[in-house]
Amino acid sequence: MRDIAALKTALEGLKIEDNPALVKQKSRDFFWYSPVLKRELDHVTADLVVSPRSEAEILRVLETCYRHDVPVTVRGTGTGNYGQAMPLAGGVVMNLAEMNRVLKISPGRLVAEPGAILHDIDVAARASSGQEMRMHPSTLKTASIGGFIGGGSGGVGSIRWGGLRDIGNVLRLKVATMEERPRLLELDGWDLQKVCHAYGTNGVITEVEIPLTAAYDWIDVIVGFDSFERAAAYGDDIGNRDGLLLKLVSPIAAPIPQDYFLRHRRFIPDGRHICLVMVAAHALGPLLAVTRRLGGEVLFRSDTAEDTKGLPPAYELSWNHTTLRGLRVDPGITYLQVLYPYPNHLDLVSRVHAHFGDEVLAHLEFVRFDGNITCFGLPIVRFTTEERLDEIMRIHEDMGCVIFNPHRYTLEEGGMKQTDEVQLAFKREADPKGLLNPGKMIGWEKPDFDFGSRRNYLFPGLQPAS
Amino acid sequence: MRDIAALKTALEGLKIEDNPALVKQKSRDFFWYSPVLKRELDHVTADLVVSPRSEAEILRVLETCYRHDVPVTVRGTGTGNYGQAMPLAGGVVMNLAEMNRVLKISPGRLVAEPGAILHDIDVAARASSGQEMRMHPSTLKTASIGGFIGGGSGGVGSIRWGGLRDIGNVLRLKVATMEERPRLLELDGWDLQKVCHAYGTNGVITEVEIPLTAAYDWIDVIVGFDSFERAAAYGDDIGNRDGLLLKLVSPIAAPIPQDYFLRHRRFIPDGRHICLVMVAAHALGPLLAVTRRLGGEVLFRSDTAEDTKGLPPAYELSWNHTTLRGLRVDPGITYLQVLYPYPNHLDLVSRVHAHFGDEVLAHLEFVRFDGNITCFGLPIVRFTTEERLDEIMRIHEDMGCVIFNPHRYTLEEGGMKQTDEVQLAFKREADPKGLLNPGKMIGWEKPDFDFGSRRNYLFPGLQPAS
Repeated sequence: MRDIAALKTALEGLKIEDNPALVKQKSRDFFWYSPVLKRELDHVTADLVVSPRSEAEILRVLETCYRHDVPVTVRGTGTGNYGQAMPLAGGVVMNLAEMNRVLKISPGRLVAEPGAILHDIDVAARASSGQEMRMHPSTLKTASIGGFIGGGSGGVGSIRWGGLRDIGNVLRLKVATMEERPRLLELDGWDLQKVCHAYGTNGVITEVEIPLTAAYDWIDVIVGFDSFERAAAYGDDIGNRDGLLLKLVSPIAAPIPQDYFLRHRRFIPDGRHICLVMVAAHALGPLLAVTRRLGGEVLFRSDTAEDTKGLPPAYELSWNHTTLRGLRVDPGITYLQVLYPYPNHLDLVSRVHAHFGDEVLAHLEFVRFDGNITCFGLPIVRFTTEERLDEIMRIHEDMGCVIFNPHRYTLEEGGMKQTDEVQLAFKREADPKGLLNPGKMIGWEKPDFDFGSRRNYLFPGLQPAS
Repeated sequence: MRDIAALKTALEGLKIEDNPALVKQKSRDFFWYSPVLKRELDHVTADLVVSPRSEAEILRVLETCYRHDVPVTVRGTGTGNYGQAMPLAGGVVMNLAEMNRVLKISPGRLVAEPGAILHDIDVAARASSGQEMRMHPSTLKTASIGGFIGGGSGGVGSIRWGGLRDIGNVLRLKVATMEERPRLLELDGWDLQKVCHAYGTNGVITEVEIPLTAAYDWIDVIVGFDSFERAAAYGDDIGNRDGLLLKLVSPIAAPIPQDYFLRHRRFIPDGRHICLVMVAAHALGPLLAVTRRLGGEVLFRSDTAEDTKGLPPAYELSWNHTTLRGLRVDPGITYLQVLYPYPNHLDLVSRVHAHFGDEVLAHLEFVRFDGNITCFGLPIVRFTTEERLDEIMRIHEDMGCVIFNPHRYTLEEGGMKQTDEVQLAFKREADPKGLLNPGKMIGWEKPDFDFGSRRNYLFPGLQPAS
């Protein structure tokens, strides 16, 4: 048995929370978007939440927990969707919310502590030097930079810069190991891949350096079309126009906007399929010229709208905020994460959505992916059973899509990351006891797991429901 | 006969040059890169050079020349390569060098007079707001913005932003017509295509508005490879990495750098093929990581080079400066302009250059083109006869390349622009007498010209050699 009382004593002087209700709150993320994860993870909770205020305190937590054999799961603000920061085996949640300073801003670069909120980073970068982050998730206002790098993949801005996985989109990470004497490592170049999108299984990010880009004024535009195919083709067309500075291109099928975008639906006639666009102010004129030529109807423009009070920004209608708005209206829905590979993406989108009809509603996000413009999908699924959900994903794959399964809590089954020998060797070095976020890396937990079985991995250490 | 004396009288008070030697100097560009154009155009000269100092003076020149039936050929600084600004039918060269003010800089936008030098624009934009132009030709230090838009196509920066032809890369032009009472028109959106890359045949640009982007510090890197295929594949690889902020990617085959890059050749071992790269300072580390993985050897870095005195910047080794450096060493060479269409561009490059061997030396410029990364070629050709030059181009086309023929002085034969009904209708309106830069637009001069004949167009009004 773990001696949590002894651990608490050993951590004296640190900011510790052990109120069960508050600990449970800090042990959760948005896993409940998935009915599968909701069933599997709803009971998960840590024993303690520790909130270090400095790098030295992070090292002390790691050293102490190592000595006591207590797992440590690092948490930013808990905006993940697959239990990235949920302590499957209990133990300590290390909450980095207190380490939220922006340390340095220079041309093209920003250094911050891991708990810095993305929106605060953007505000600071814009104020100091007219810069901003290259990309952010739809949770700009709440997510932390460490959490984004540790558990995210891209988002608003990926139409221009690709994803976090692309070299150059993270510049440097300082990472603490979990050993008898924790070390601080500086990682850059290819080495970053050991820690990016690894859910904190390979070390604790204590400092990040990210690239910045020019912060222009972004205008939200909603363009309407009479068919979803035309909205998707429009997204593809504008995404491929190299002279248009865009930050978001999101085709969304009816009736998603009408049913779920409660603040914006007054602008969107029934039956109309839309494309959300964020465009730099100086590219608005050219965008409108293209839009006219392609037969799009401008339904909304944030720069000329008469009353924008209470309207969320377009990015809070996009990526997984689309799903969130759906869940608020209809808790019975869920979603998928799909890649429609270039160059057949438009045809594939068309065939997939014709196949499913009203059961799977199309929502695309255009991105740069390996140098080409293609689209991810985060379609809304009218959920019935887990078996049907698996079948829907299988049909997608059979048709040629790549699924990043958001109904699994492991790195490998999510599909964004395969654990290779480099990763494993690094984990052996950085976390020899396997105490960092246990249960998330199948390659570590069960190297002989049969991915071909199509059965999902069940972490034997998953803290039992009490 | 034209009454040039009467015209001069009518233009009294304007800045006029009629010294034949000086007039001839201002009637030329870099047409002599082409042995064909050198033969055809070497004798071309205007009767007068007029240098207006204001929009009002431009209008006065146009009105007066219209009344006297004298052609007007607009000129920036004469850095074109196909006689864009050469007065084939004599008459007036309107030199816009005096109209060189930067008028306004704001986030994402810059307004300037047409004669503003590109380098001055970049210096002003950087000093005032940390911005710069999205793209420029290798003649940054000498070319004017009006000349670039009127006669250019893209260049350094096109790896990120595509070409001038892409909507959004020019925002607005003010254009004077040549009528009894010249008018000033404001063009934006698709209408810009009437005037962009039209060599001043469709109106005189009196003001430009262009988009700006963030001005980061750019580092020149020269990477060496043991085969040209590997240099080309490297260029393609880094061009497709969405997280790398690059401004120039130019693979160049040996022995071009060794023979022609006199200041840099001490860095480049014999037989080594190179790729020139301009990379943002904050993307250098990631670029070097990719370079190592791809087996490239860094031969030169401007940020760490011990002695950069007298070294031209990388962009002055690229695009048509590559050719210029070749011509300085060996006046017997010339060049082509080739597009290797995506997605078979690397294979095509390989096959084309294997076919020609030492007769055609490979020089590529990677660019974004309709949303994809592909490459233009400006290969060095060891010139023998015009017939062989034509044959070389035909072989390129037969293999699947697109040729933009730099050995022709018309818009259509250059191939960057086809004259359509919209263009012609606009020319009828803006230049009813056809006095603006006569001889450059076949669609106007000889609508029934047979482009299939493979014979080049000979402008009947071409001023005879005296």
